[in-house]
Amino acid sequence: MKIESGIKQFKKPLYLESGRILEPYQIAYSTYGELNDDLSNAILITHALTGSHKPVKEDGCKIFNNGWWDSLIGDGKPIDTRKYFVIATNVIGSIFGSTSPTSPIDQYSHNRLYRYKFPVVTIKDMVKAQHTFLQSIGIRKVKAIIGGSMGGMQSLQFGVDYPHFAEHIIAMAATSATSPWTIAFNKITQEAIKRDPKFNNGEYNIHDIRENGLDGLAIGRMAGHISFLSHSSMYKKFGRNYLKDDGFYDINGRFQVDSYLEYNGDKFSKLFDPLSYLYLTKAINIFDLSNGYNSLANALEKFEAKLTLISYTGDLLFLPEESQEIYNTMRSIGKNNQVEYYEIESDYGHDAFLVEFEKFDWIIKKVLE
Amino acid sequence: MKIESGIKQFKKPLYLESGRILEPYQIAYSTYGELNDDLSNAILITHALTGSHKPVKEDGCKIFNNGWWDSLIGDGKPIDTRKYFVIATNVIGSIFGSTSPTSPIDQYSHNRLYRYKFPVVTIKDMVKAQHTFLQSIGIRKVKAIIGGSMGGMQSLQFGVDYPHFAEHIIAMAATSATSPWTIAFNKITQEAIKRDPKFNNGEYNIHDIRENGLDGLAIGRMAGHISFLSHSSMYKKFGRNYLKDDGFYDINGRFQVDSYLEYNGDKFSKLFDPLSYLYLTKAINIFDLSNGYNSLANALEKFEAKLTLISYTGDLLFLPEESQEIYNTMRSIGKNNQVEYYEIESDYGHDAFLVEFEKFDWIIKKVLE
Repeated sequence: MKIESGIKQFKKPLYLESGRILEPYQIAYSTYGELNDDLSNAILITHALTGSHKPVKEDGCKIFNNGWWDSLIGDGKPIDTRKYFVIATNVIGSIFGSTSPTSPIDQYSHNRLYRYKFPVVTIKDMVKAQHTFLQSIGIRKVKAIIGGSMGGMQSLQFGVDYPHFAEHIIAMAATSATSPWTIAFNKITQEAIKRDPKFNNGEYNIHDIRENGLDGLAIGRMAGHISFLSHSSMYKKFGRNYLKDDGFYDINGRFQVDSYLEYNGDKFSKLFDPLSYLYLTKAINIFDLSNGYNSLANALEKFEAKLTLISYTGDLLFLPEESQEIYNTMRSIGKNNQVEYYEIESDYGHDAFLVEFEKFDWIIKKVLE
Repeated sequence: MKIESGIKQFKKPLYLESGRILEPYQIAYSTYGELNDDLSNAILITHALTGSHKPVKEDGCKIFNNGWWDSLIGDGKPIDTRKYFVIATNVIGSIFGSTSPTSPIDQYSHNRLYRYKFPVVTIKDMVKAQHTFLQSIGIRKVKAIIGGSMGGMQSLQFGVDYPHFAEHIIAMAATSATSPWTIAFNKITQEAIKRDPKFNNGEYNIHDIRENGLDGLAIGRMAGHISFLSHSSMYKKFGRNYLKDDGFYDINGRFQVDSYLEYNGDKFSKLFDPLSYLYLTKAINIFDLSNGYNSLANALEKFEAKLTLISYTGDLLFLPEESQEIYNTMRSIGKNNQVEYYEIESDYGHDAFLVEFEKFDWIIKKVLE
């Protein structure tokens, strides 16, 4: 499989939904496989909150969770790179190469970073930037746009904003508008970050954070892990096992699940960025496909692509009912033949779309055939 | 209704499950109504993590959430104080008057507080202290022991440890052993507290914390609120409403649910104590009714009281399945006539036992009749 990676610079302004302008900006990307002669075999992969433009595992790549969809993308895999030209970009606001809050505020003074001066970007803005990127490499149509969670939001937004761009849209573990429960969930991490003295109102020492992490981000990530796993998967993984070296009656003694959360929280807090986390969760929280329309139905009327919705029964962040609502709305406006809905029984929580591939990869295969 | 409150001192040692000794110790209590001549009308109420010995609302009482079961206890109420003598004590380790981590380490030097030197107390220890207290006021039998969440754990433990003490045990929103998911949930708050620099490894300035709160405890409480409310109750309460004064594209702009969490988190962090929180969640985490027995069945064989289990469908911390397991185990050891199980359809989360009284108060009435 041919793999290419890079960072593309854009000098023209990106006009944001907020009215603000990002100029210049850059987008980190990867491509897998080869574009065919009639440019008809491209597939765009959109990533989730902590994902990146590296869905395929690369040895030596230091990007957090790189290879997050390695089971799905590659030669002979469900998204077959012998057949398709797969593109992934890092969203605006994320930390892995695209313009973000820790990017220089202008090209000439690399010491002045955006930090809190970075504009709020929305899912719509992320999609616009990706659309611009794709056009810049000559792609005017894609076979499919596929993503889960925040990636699913992007794929849905693509369908509304650029109705003729994609043949198929696949949105997994997503919603048409983030629920107050999930907003509340994100709030824990946001507050843990903002109240951490080392965060210093956004003026933190970046080298220190990358080296030692930020407690606030670690705590938030621990909260995240609770949504990734279900009750039963936690029973299977950890049970009530206690760490052998820790005293049972020691106030700081730990269960295995405690130690797992600590390890993952601390690791993550060195590999992600607190400001990026704030900006991306903000984008997730204010995401509402009907923004700018009278209703969800009104927004979905613009949809021309075929839409496939996949939800997971154990998902607490984006409930199956939320995908069903999109499905029902599509049908209510006469788009019955344009939409399919699958509910996957899963023991995992929200993370099922990153774990239980065998349960849904056949749907992707079916859609692409 | 006659109300009495006080703090009772105990000079004799309390031998703890850990092998450590608490000596001396004190227990804060309240009683409602009057004890009858044959001492047969006492009911013990056991409180949850942030509850207290003040289940009945008292004007001017500064204790957090006082009156938490005001709808259930009083003259003519489901737990009728014209008929019953209701007793509530503050558990060992809690902050509202009983001996806790912020109590003086000995009687003579009031400046030296336990802090991290406080021994880990278990649900079994809390129950032992309450049993000692009840005996000290002449009560050798109670009509019922009723509690929810950590209070339900206590009532269950009472049934195992003092089989002939209570006629009825009612355990709501409880479990026989805390699940890894709930341990993980508690971990967020524990880490948020311990990593807060102001916590200072337990040597925090108590006056400052009571005056200004502790961010770590506030963050943890925000996490708690997520478990108290369900998806649908959050939709009803907040929807996706945004604060009118906050900018939609302002990175720190807030939804109503954000503002609700902030308000409640900050309020709570001034009214509770971080070390108490660590000790009480530790007791909840290590709670396992089968500790010291070969199995849950083995422990439940000691049960002589009639047991009523109530669970709530929206409860994520203690699932209906966990109460069902106790029910099934009781039946599997031939105690079919000694156990009843009710599952309450609830739109609330774990907090249903503190909110939707009309849905389950009839069960309490029925048991007491």
